[in-house]
Amino acid sequence: MRELPKKYKKDAPCSYALGPFPTFELLRRRPGQAVAVYYREDFRDQDKLSALCQDLGVPCACSGKALERISQKEICYAAGVFQKYPGRLRTDVPHVALVHPGDMGNLGAIQRTLLGFGIRDLAIIGNGADHWNPKAVRASMGAAFQVETQTFPDFPAYLAAYGPGREIFPFMLDGGAVLTPQAVPPAKLYTLVFGNEATGLPPEYQNYGKTLFIPQSPDVDSLNLAVAVAIGVYLFTNS
Amino acid sequence: MRELPKKYKKDAPCSYALGPFPTFELLRRRPGQAVAVYYREDFRDQDKLSALCQDLGVPCACSGKALERISQKEICYAAGVFQKYPGRLRTDVPHVALVHPGDMGNLGAIQRTLLGFGIRDLAIIGNGADHWNPKAVRASMGAAFQVETQTFPDFPAYLAAYGPGREIFPFMLDGGAVLTPQAVPPAKLYTLVFGNEATGLPPEYQNYGKTLFIPQSPDVDSLNLAVAVAIGVYLFTNS
Repeated sequence: MRELPKKYKKDAPCSYALGPFPTFELLRRRPGQAVAVYYREDFRDQDKLSALCQDLGVPCACSGKALERISQKEICYAAGVFQKYPGRLRTDVPHVALVHPGDMGNLGAIQRTLLGFGIRDLAIIGNGADHWNPKAVRASMGAAFQVETQTFPDFPAYLAAYGPGREIFPFMLDGGAVLTPQAVPPAKLYTLVFGNEATGLPPEYQNYGKTLFIPQSPDVDSLNLAVAVAIGVYLFTNS
Repeated sequence: MRELPKKYKKDAPCSYALGPFPTFELLRRRPGQAVAVYYREDFRDQDKLSALCQDLGVPCACSGKALERISQKEICYAAGVFQKYPGRLRTDVPHVALVHPGDMGNLGAIQRTLLGFGIRDLAIIGNGADHWNPKAVRASMGAAFQVETQTFPDFPAYLAAYGPGREIFPFMLDGGAVLTPQAVPPAKLYTLVFGNEATGLPPEYQNYGKTLFIPQSPDVDSLNLAVAVAIGVYLFTNS
């Protein structure tokens, strides 16, 4: 604990859970990854946090200085330092795949939504936003510690590992089938695939499965990515 | 144009559309409200913007200084100054009502989602986030200029104006009917009502109509407000 934590870097082995809620989620869901916890002098729940850390054998300290270094500008009452870990998807459950997601806040919000609908396996394809960035972890409200998230260099690499026996549904603006509440494909083992916020999925994804299109007004350029994912996942998990 | 625009204030008669896309939307959808337009020297589409302003008779100037004052910190290539206007909902179409919405970014994102699903009438009940704040307008990507948005002091005031002949569906965590894709109430003239991000709807909303609940995992405290609104609106507009 003597060395103060550093500003987050993508290639560093550790990242940060900023804020009390994500910090408690880290300790509850992934205690083995927690390296240290810091809280501010004026943090209300410091007794509860210290006790939990003591139970788990996680070092815990009151240090406004450490929190300032971790959280950069924002006021942050508590934070956890954790070791990043490689995600590993399960073979026998539905997945969501995000291709080149661009925004860390969106990525965390999507993890939270997936967890809300019971999807706990997320594939990130290609060079996308770093899901371990503290901004993404914070936006997930700690759902990052419950949604197993695995990265793949490209979609064929994902298919080689998890494709067999699985139906693939790429969501595309020029997609084939219109996805209405009454016409949700009856699939048990599936992957819902969504493209980048600005560019969508590249045309070759037409070949990977049955493309779907969420009906939308011509008055907007497209739906927000997090909204499209939420609707797709809600429909498939409730049909 | 001589007087430089000031930092936005809630009680000011004017607000700002920040960024090229919202600025073009302002000029296309609400040209009569546009007061002035500014762009940066290095803005790519300045010829297109100037020509449109000239057609519409809206003053247009190249002024990095004005943009800096308007946008505070963010880099902004173009912005429009516009006169705020009171929204007025239509009586014969579906509405969405947000009760005390707390976050301006959420509010704008919700306007964009509503427009994407063809809902163009939004009621804001009680003291909520200011939908004319430049942050909200920016988050809406200009949808703020197509979604008529009217504020009401409380829900009875909304009902007095628009209630007759209308079915009300409050979305509540302890709501009555579970909203599945197969069980969307067959309503033609309706209002979908959603509560604050942190606190949801107060218990008295149970009395205003048929409460609905979007099924969700106990692993999250609640769905994100924008996600709940998106799912509700998608289901009602596609069933």
